[in-house]
Order: sequence, then structure tokens, then C-alpha cells
Amino acid sequence: MKYTFNLKLMLLAACLVVPLMSGHVIGQEAAEAEPGPVDDYLEMVDAAGAEYAPAFDFFTTSMLWTVIAAAMVFIMHLGFATLEVGLTQSKNTVNILFKNSFIIAIGLITYALVGFNSHYPGDFNGVFSFGWRPIGDLNADGGDGWGYGGLGLAMTGFGDFIFQAMFAATAATIVSGAVAERVKLPAFMIFAVLLVGFAYPVVGSWHWGGGWLGKLNGGNGFKDFAGSAVVHAFGGFAALACVILLGARKGKYTKDGIKPILGHSMPLAAVGVFLLFFGWFGFNGGSVLSAAPGPLGLVFTTTALAASAGAIGAIFTAWIVLKKPDLSMTLNGFLAGLVGITANADIVSPAGSMLIGLIAGIIVVFSVIMFDKLKIDDPVGAISVHGVCGVWGILAAALFEVVPEGADKQFFIGGQLIGVFAVAIAAFVFSFVVFLILKVTIGIRVSEEEEAEGLDIAEHGAPAYNIQ
Amino acid sequence: MKYTFNLKLMLLAACLVVPLMSGHVIGQEAAEAEPGPVDDYLEMVDAAGAEYAPAFDFFTTSMLWTVIAAAMVFIMHLGFATLEVGLTQSKNTVNILFKNSFIIAIGLITYALVGFNSHYPGDFNGVFSFGWRPIGDLNADGGDGWGYGGLGLAMTGFGDFIFQAMFAATAATIVSGAVAERVKLPAFMIFAVLLVGFAYPVVGSWHWGGGWLGKLNGGNGFKDFAGSAVVHAFGGFAALACVILLGARKGKYTKDGIKPILGHSMPLAAVGVFLLFFGWFGFNGGSVLSAAPGPLGLVFTTTALAASAGAIGAIFTAWIVLKKPDLSMTLNGFLAGLVGITANADIVSPAGSMLIGLIAGIIVVFSVIMFDKLKIDDPVGAISVHGVCGVWGILAAALFEVVPEGADKQFFIGGQLIGVFAVAIAAFVFSFVVFLILKVTIGIRVSEEEEAEGLDIAEHGAPAYNIQ
Amino acid sequence: MKYTFNLKLMLLAACLVVPLMSGHVIGQEAAEAEPGPVDDYLEMVDAAGAEYAPAFDFFTTSMLWTVIAAAMVFIMHLGFATLEVGLTQSKNTVNILFKNSFIIAIGLITYALVGFNSHYPGDFNGVFSFGWRPIGDLNADGGDGWGYGGLGLAMTGFGDFIFQAMFAATAATIVSGAVAERVKLPAFMIFAVLLVGFAYPVVGSWHWGGGWLGKLNGGNGFKDFAGSAVVHAFGGFAALACVILLGARKGKYTKDGIKPILGHSMPLAAVGVFLLFFGWFGFNGGSVLSAAPGPLGLVFTTTALAASAGAIGAIFTAWIVLKKPDLSMTLNGFLAGLVGITANADIVSPAGSMLIGLIAGIIVVFSVIMFDKLKIDDPVGAISVHGVCGVWGILAAALFEVVPEGADKQFFIGGQLIGVFAVAIAAFVFSFVVFLILKVTIGIRVSEEEEAEGLDIAEHGAPAYNIQ
Repeated sequence: MKYTFNLKLMLLAACLVVPLMSGHVIGQEAAEAEPGPVDDYLEMVDAAGAEYAPAFDFFTTSMLWTVIAAAMVFIMHLGFATLEVGLTQSKNTVNILFKNSFIIAIGLITYALVGFNSHYPGDFNGVFSFGWRPIGDLNADGGDGWGYGGLGLAMTGFGDFIFQAMFAATAATIVSGAVAERVKLPAFMIFAVLLVGFAYPVVGSWHWGGGWLGKLNGGNGFKDFAGSAVVHAFGGFAALACVILLGARKGKYTKDGIKPILGHSMPLAAVGVFLLFFGWFGFNGGSVLSAAPGPLGLVFTTTALAASAGAIGAIFTAWIVLKKPDLSMTLNGFLAGLVGITANADIVSPAGSMLIGLIAGIIVVFSVIMFDKLKIDDPVGAISVHGVCGVWGILAAALFEVVPEGADKQFFIGGQLIGVFAVAIAAFVFSFVVFLILKVTIGIRVSEEEEAEGLDIAEHGAPAYNIQ
Repeated sequence: MKYTFNLKLMLLAACLVVPLMSGHVIGQEAAEAEPGPVDDYLEMVDAAGAEYAPAFDFFTTSMLWTVIAAAMVFIMHLGFATLEVGLTQSKNTVNILFKNSFIIAIGLITYALVGFNSHYPGDFNGVFSFGWRPIGDLNADGGDGWGYGGLGLAMTGFGDFIFQAMFAATAATIVSGAVAERVKLPAFMIFAVLLVGFAYPVVGSWHWGGGWLGKLNGGNGFKDFAGSAVVHAFGGFAALACVILLGARKGKYTKDGIKPILGHSMPLAAVGVFLLFFGWFGFNGGSVLSAAPGPLGLVFTTTALAASAGAIGAIFTAWIVLKKPDLSMTLNGFLAGLVGITANADIVSPAGSMLIGLIAGIIVVFSVIMFDKLKIDDPVGAISVHGVCGVWGILAAALFEVVPEGADKQFFIGGQLIGVFAVAIAAFVFSFVVFLILKVTIGIRVSEEEEAEGLDIAEHGAPAYNIQ
Repeated sequence: MKYTFNLKLMLLAACLVVPLMSGHVIGQEAAEAEPGPVDDYLEMVDAAGAEYAPAFDFFTTSMLWTVIAAAMVFIMHLGFATLEVGLTQSKNTVNILFKNSFIIAIGLITYALVGFNSHYPGDFNGVFSFGWRPIGDLNADGGDGWGYGGLGLAMTGFGDFIFQAMFAATAATIVSGAVAERVKLPAFMIFAVLLVGFAYPVVGSWHWGGGWLGKLNGGNGFKDFAGSAVVHAFGGFAALACVILLGARKGKYTKDGIKPILGHSMPLAAVGVFLLFFGWFGFNGGSVLSAAPGPLGLVFTTTALAASAGAIGAIFTAWIVLKKPDLSMTLNGFLAGLVGITANADIVSPAGSMLIGLIAGIIVVFSVIMFDKLKIDDPVGAISVHGVCGVWGILAAALFEVVPEGADKQFFIGGQLIGVFAVAIAAFVFSFVVFLILKVTIGIRVSEEEEAEGLDIAEHGAPAYNIQ
């Protein structure tokens, strides 16, 4: 009896959808005879069973957010480019824009050719997931919520790909800022391809691809929500290795002390940081991996508050230490807060996010000063912002985790330290070895003459500016 | 009998959802054993009752729009910064970027600490809603559509917060443009904190927080859709008070007449206006407070048409009056149209929006000229754009309201005037008093030497540009 | 019996929605007595029948995407403006910003007054659909999924309008770049109005408005997904006609050979291209015309990969041909890939998109060099990027179409050639005739003195830069 009734209802539920699929005439575009997208959608839902419609709507909204978030992460690459250009000398502007254009282009291409399937290697859970496996038709199983990831994943295969692909080039872009103004272009291009196409997805697979880091302590030992470690610290410590091998820019560290090399356009630097802040809503918000309203609102809030508190922390720290209101420290303060919240945006409170950001903003000022004293010449502060604050963000996940009543605390300093040091050491060692090989073969640094002349003329034969 | 049947169906409806929650294997990310976001979502819907699923999907889409709109309003702050920088002298660029960075950071922080709960004070409906009430876990009741605002509000608590927080700093940013190039930094910083953290939410609560303005004429006496009055006129008249106390820039008004002080980068100014136009889709569109397709499409259309008509109005008015095609008037024309439509974007027709924008574009040209004749020195035209056109937008709501057939006209000039003048006077008086106190205590204006040298070197010790 | 049961269930289904509509108290905003947007939504769904709720949720999500995509296409106009400014001389900057501001403003206005209803003329399917038919209340039939386009169209009337309106100004903007630095402002303004308000919608109606091109070969003869032909080739060939009539800039082609006139700000050019890339996700992604997750993810992926491959293609081609890593070719390579994928983003594979982009990036380098040899002076490469690569994109649709198993190949070179040449010839002839009339009447070119002085001072009386 119950079964019969159930069957009847099933039939009925399906019937409810059928009228929606009948051919409505489109008023405005009367000529279009073929069925529109809503018809296609209804057909898809109908094929799956009408009772799946609500879940499918959630899937559709989540997937929309995934691709919008991907576009927002893309714009971060413009942010990185303008920030880096703004904080360096005008004679190296074309070179930086060229490098960053190349990185985003080659980053997306290599991610399609090898990165995506190395990053998410499926059953393979080792430490070395690399292989030549280009993506194919990720819609092959329907391009809906069932074929690709099952109902557990609120995006299609292409959504998964494009969102992750936009992250991939970030690591190389972080390095780009640190080595700016003296790196040899071909060497950097080769290094960037290897870092983005090989090292980033392999190390990332440890955490996101089902590797050992994701399995630590039964899958709950290491928290890195959107990538403070596997994106930012990875990039920051890769940068550190490169800068050590490359040496400082001529004239920066003299026997008369440190001579600051001023950036050439603070408006460009500010544009960069604001675009990065904007894009970070996609970076962190998209890492919710769905449009689930609870986490989404929380992540937007903690991200914005941490960034703001980072700026406030940096403003007042720099004011006390440097005795003036310093714009570039302020800008780095925003970024420090953003990097700091990236590991933990979904598990901390608003108050926690403000503290995390504030501390990140204080850390970044001292870190920038410290690296300068160590004669580690990083024109944009990338090692401090992404490396040091990336480590801070990972630790903050353990320190500021909000534990729901009745639940157990999940993340501890121990596991967090293991994870972030594994990533940082891997990034450092890989970069050091590769960059060293490049150094002894094709060379990694331009000549003194080229450095003095500027890379725009020396390597590209064209100046960036001709303002009359 | 009916009850039994009903119960059975309820059970059944719940059952339909259960299969969706069973563990589907994720192809790509096979290693991830824990349930994904769609599972969480289905669990949430299941707990509420399967019949809520469609409403919850609408809620999810609306909430997604809220946070995206918040990000778009954020980018307006970059627009304000670049516009202000572009229209002023290069020697004050670092100062302006620093001020605007500080404003967005402190604006978000103070809104979390006191603003949000002062802006929406709940039962309290007086004129003075201020108090130290930081936000806590706004997801405490579930982070879904039921716990926070009931089904009447299509966003979670954090969505509500972050969207409103992005608005809050706008008022101070408007003032920033008007006082640029001669204001003393610490005085402005203190003023901005008080304006954003205290005055803005208190005045805003009159309209949006259940205060007297929202209750005027039985709740229908005052129309200010997205804030022509409570954001723009508020900022514009605060700016007027500050500029009166501050005085004009040296060399602007001489005995030989008005000497225009040219902006230093029209590309930056144009970037600013285009980003503001883009962000305004979030400002007005997000003020629909849901993804309801009817109002959303209307608001996008009226916003875009008013902006465009504003530019056209300003272009031809300026061409006639100034005898040349003037770019900065064109840019202010876009903004005038945008401010003009902000009060009424959801109740006017496309034709109405074009007229509102056109008139705003004409007004802004004469207003800028008039304030210059009155020796009110406003480097970016903020008082005209936000103050004067804000008033125009409020009046336009009454003049251009489209009254649906069979309905009564709702908004009248009388109520609109009461509202906008209450807001404008409050902003003016508050700003005048606070800025006057600052003037007689720590001082609000830099020395003549510092003004001549430029604030970048004088206050920040660093130039904005080093283009070789 | 079955009927009774069915009726009962219908009633029940309606009942399930009713509780959702009862007045829930809004915690945060307790004062708000009126029902919120979710209530309105539920009322609308209830009126249509509760069984429509899932379809309506899909409609709502799709409409949200449409307006967000419209905002992203809007930002492309900032991209065009900064790219054009960056690649030209600083003395013509104000002029270019003014032109582009005017174009977006007048483009939106004319599209509301005549363009939209000419573009989608309904029953009329001829070649000349033009008429004075301003848009009215496109929400007249409810502002939901039924009144305007039936269930076949996943957007409201205003959504349809605003998305298409943002496309309309693009054609004139493309021309703007090609004629920069010597065109007379009033002539260009008149030309732009006629191109955007008249020619663009009429030609567009052939394909998208139910005209002959859309009906070719039973409606399947011509593929132009988002407008490689009807937007980009249209603009590119209009530009070619104008440039031929206008002549080259003074000093470009001398008896001593071609003298490159360098752009004045490569950062602005790069900002432009990155913003265009970002906006193109809205341009192509929005052309899915719904939020259907399968096509949306595919289109984002193919768009990004083609752009990236275009840059890689241009980088290495230019490196070989010009013997240096050339930034402006790299930037044009991104755009070439984007134009190339625009016709076919929804029917090619990831591998196909990379090949399409790569070839476009190679083509654009040779095309730019070729037009320079032909003394066709196009300061920004618009004819090559939009015209030549637009044709390539149309052909690529036939060459790279992925034919699902069991289906027939749909698009062939023949139909594609007919379509793109019809559009290109129409654009060329229209532009040639109109611009020729303007040439012999009011003149299309500034005087030699004005060109030498720069249009900023000559036509606008104000320089773009005053950097001290």
C-alpha cells in the first residue's frame, strides 16, 4: 500500500514538472524556435527525478558562485601586477608587467595540461602526484551535480578546474615581486613554469588532493582553509630561496646603511592592494566551495575584518616604529591581515578575525624591517606578507578556532606546525635547487649595466612611460 | 483522514530528500571522505522540513547576491580613492591614499564594534541609538534563513552586516575628497572615526533602523531606496561643514579671480568614476535586499540609464557654459546621475531614470560653478555631487514615482523634504561642532609651508611618484 | 479517484508554502513591519502554483547571473579606455577618456531609446529593423519568468535589456581606439551615435533578433556564440573603414620607414587588458543566457584558456619576429585569444580552446605588422584584434566544433564565411559612407597644429597629467 502510494506520488511529482517544459512562446525573441535554457534545465531535472530539483537549484547557485569567485581571483593577478609595479622603479615596469602576464597565461595553460590532475590525483595519495594528464571534457558525465563529483561537490568539473586554475599562478606571482628589478627574464620564466606546473600542484595535493597532510590525525590534523600555507607560505618561502640566491639590488645595502629604493607610483600600489582585497572575497569566499549562506557570510566578514585590522595594526606599528604614517606599510597591513585569515576564515569569530588581522599587521612591519636588516632584499615585502603571515595564519587557526558547544577542539599547534613547515620547506628546497641549477647554467641575474639601465630598455627595448 | 494523509506526505517529502544525502563518491577528489556542502545543505533543509527547500534556494541565491554586492560596494572605495587622487595635485597623493585606506579599515572595524548594532538598534526607535555593542556570532541561530531575520529577510546576519559595513565608510570618504590637500591628518582621522562610528549609524537608524524617519506617515512618508539622503547627502553636507571651517586651498581664490588647481591624473580620475559606476550596481542592486528578479533588473537598468543621462547632461551643459567638452564635468555627471537615482531606483521607469539623471547632470555643473563662486573650495566636487544631487534624488523619488494602476501615490515632496533636511542638518551640525572642536584644539589645517610643499613629503615623508 | 488525489495534493502543495508566508518577526530589524522580499517571492510563486518553485529558483539564479554579467561587461569599457589611453601619447589622453565616457553614456541611452527594440524586432525578420521604439516597463508582465519571455528565457525584460545594452557601445569603442590621436571630436561623436544607435542593432538583429543570419540553414547555419562577428568583427571592420578615410598619424609613416609612436603608459595598457579579460567572463559567460552549470563552467574554462594561449602565442611569435619579449604584443595576444573564442566558447573542448587562442595570438602579431606595412595606422591594433581575430573565431567555430556522439556536425566553413563577411561588409560600408559624408561636411580630422599640440589642449583645454 505504502509502496503504491509512493510510486503514484513519484509519477505525480514528475508530472508537475512537465508543464513547465511545454513550449512557451518567447515574446521578445519570437523568432527563436528552439527551447531555451530553462527548458534544458527542466529536462535535466526531469531526467534525474523531479525531487532533485531543489538540490539542483542549490547546486546551480553554488556553481555560479564558483565561477564568479574564479573571476575575482583572476583580478587578483592584476592586483599583484599593479602592486609590484607601483612599489618598484619605473625603469623595470614593462618587465614586471610582462612577467606577470606570462605567469597568468602559462599558469592557466600548465594547470590544464598537467596541474589539475596532479593537484587532485584521485586514488593516489603519495607525495609525488605529478604526471602528464591534460584535462578533457569535464562535462562528460553531464555537466551537472551528479556526473562529476556526486552531490557532495557543489560544482561541475569545469567549475572545479577554473577556480583552482586561478589559484595556481599565485605562487609564481608572489615570487615575481620578491625577485623584481634584477632577475633575468628567461631564467624566471623557466622557474615559473616549473613552480606552477609541477611544484605547486604536487605540494597542494598533500593537503587538497587527498595526500598525507589532509589525512593527518584522521583528516582533522591540519587546517588550511583557503591556502595560507599551500598558496601563500608556499609562494613566500619559494621567494625567500630565490632572493637568497639572487642577492640584493645594487645600491640597496651599502656600507652607509640601508638605502630605500622607493616605489615609483603609489597610486598603482594602492590600486593593486584594493584589487587584491576585492579578489580575496573570491579567494576565501569561493573556498567555501558552495553558496551555503552561513559559511559564506562568515567568511566574507572575517576576511574583511582581518584585512582592516591588519591595516590598522600596520598603521600604528609603523607610526610608532618609523615615526610617520607610512602608506606602503598600510598597504602591506591589508595584505598581511588577508593572508593571516586565509587559513581560518571559516572557523573564527569576528572578534577573532580582528585579532588575527591586527597581529598580522604588527608582524608584517617588524618582519619587513627584519628582512631588510638581514639584507634579504624583497622589493615588495612578499616574503613577509605571504611567507611570515602565512605561517601566522596557520598557527592562528589553532589559536582562534571557535569550538561549537559540545564539540571537541579540532586543530592544534602541533599539527599546524607540521603542515606549514612541510609546505615551507618543500617550497624552499625546490626553489633553491631549481634556481641554483638555473644560476650555474643560464644565469639568473642581469648584468650590472642592465640593472642600472633598467630591464625595460635592456630586456624589452621599450620604456613603460612616455609622459610629455 | 486528511491529517493522516498530510503526515504521510510530510514523511514522504522528507524521504525524497534522504537519498540525496547518501554518500556519493566524489570522482575527482576520491580521497575526501567527509560529506560535502550539498550534503550539509540538504541536512539543513531536511531539519527545517523538505517543503522549505524552494524558499531556501531563493534565500541562498539572495544571500549570494548580498555578499557579491558587498564586494562591489567595497570596490567603490577604490573608485573614490583614485578619483580623489586624480583630481588633486600629485604632491598630496600619498596623503589621500593613506586617508582612504584608513577610512575603509577603521570604517569596517568600528561598524563591527559599534556601528551595526547602533544602525539597527532593534526595539529602540529613538533618535540616539548609539552604544558599545560589538557584533558576535551572527550565525548563532543557524546561519540560515530562519534564525536571524525570519523568512522576511533574504540574508544571514553576516550578510546583513558585511553589506551595510561597506556602506558605512562611504560618508567619511565623501568628506575626504572635499577637504583634500590641506587637512591635517590626525584631525581628519579622529573626525572620520566619529563620523563613521557614531554619526552615520545613528542618523541611518532614523531611516533604516526603525527610527522616526522610517515611520513617517505610517512608514511610507519618506523614500530613500539605497541612500541618496542617509549616505550621500549625509556625506555631502558633512563635507560642506568641514570645508567652511577649513577654508580654501592657498592660491585658489585670488584677487585676480578663481585659479583652477588642475588635477594631476585624468586617467586615475576616470578609473575612479568607472569603478564607482560598476560598484553602484552593488550599492543600488544590493539594496533590493534579495535576488528578486523583477526589482533587480529594474534597478540595474535605472541605475545605468541615470548615470549615462547624467554624463550626457553634464557634457552638453558644460559645453555650453564652459565652451568646451570638459572631462571632469563629464565624470561628475556620471556620479551626479548615480547619486540622483539612488533614492528611487526601484520606483521609477526607464524614461524617468533618464530624466532624473539628465537633470542631475545639469545640476552638478551649475552647482560646482556656484560653490566655486561662493569660495567653498571642494577639489573633487563632492558637495555638489553627493550633497546637492543627493537632495535632488530624494525629491525625484516623489516627482518620478511610478504609481501602479489602482494603487495610491505614496511619496510626496513634503515628506521627502523633511527627511533629507533632517539628515543634511544633522550631518552638517555634527560635523561643524566636531570639526570646530578639533580646530580649536589640535588644529585641522596644515601649515602654509606644508601645504606648499605637499602633504606627501610633509606628513608622510615620501613622494607618490618617482617616474624616471 | 486519481483526479481527486491529484487535486488534494495540489492543494496540499500550495498549503506547504503558506506557512512560509506568515509573518516571521525579524530579529535584527524588529521595527520593519512590512513583509520582506522572501514573502514577496513566495507570494509570486504561490500565485503561479507551488510546483513552479524549483523552476523559478533556477530563473532567479540565472537572472542574477545576467545582471552581474552585465556589470562585468560594463567594466570592459574601463578596460578599453585604459588600454587605448596607455597605448597612445599622453597629449591625447583627456580626449580618449572623454570619447569613451561619451560612448558608454550615449550607447546605453540610444539602446534604451531605439537600439533594444531594433535589435530584437519581434516578428519582423528583414534586414532593416530600425525604428523609434523606446523601452517601457519591461516588468509590465510581472518581472518574473513567465510574463516576458516565457520559461524559455531565463531573464526578465530588464535583465535582457541591460545585458545587451552593455554590449552595444563596444562596437564604437573598438573604432575609437583605431582612430585615436587625430580624429575630430564632433565627427566621431556623431559617427558613434549612428554606429551604436542604428547600425549595430540592425546588423545584430540579423543574427540575434531573428533575422536571416539566424535562420541560415534552418537556424543552424551560422554560429556566433557571444559575438566574434556581430560585435568584434563588426567593430573591427568599421574601424578599418574609418582609418582608411582618416589617414595615418603624422610622422608614423615616413620616407625613412615606419616610426613607431610609443604608448605613454604601459601600466594603464596592462590594467586595460586585465580588466577586459575579467569582463570577458561576463561577456561570454553571460551569453550562456542562464546559470546552467554545464555550459557556464565550460565557457569560463575555454575563455580563460584561449586568452592565455593567445598571450603565449603572441609572446613567442613576437619574440621570434621582433627578437624581443614584447609587452604590447603580449597584451594584444590575450585579446586576440578572447576575440577568437567568443564565437565558439560553448562548443569547443579545452584543447580546442587552447589551439584557437594560440593561433589567434600568432595571427595578431602578423596582422599588426601587416597593417603597419599597408600604412593602415591603428594605434591600438583594434583592426587586427577585433576584425581579423573576429573572423578567425567565426571560422574556428566550424573547425573546432565538438560534435557529441551520435549527433551531426552543425557548423561549416561555408555558413560561417557567409555570416562573418555579411557582417564585416555591412560594418565597413556603413562606416565608410557615414564617415565619408562627415569628412566632406564637418571634417573628420583635426588640423596639423592640433595634432602636433595634442587633442587634450587643442580640443579640451586641459592636460591629462600634472605630475610635479
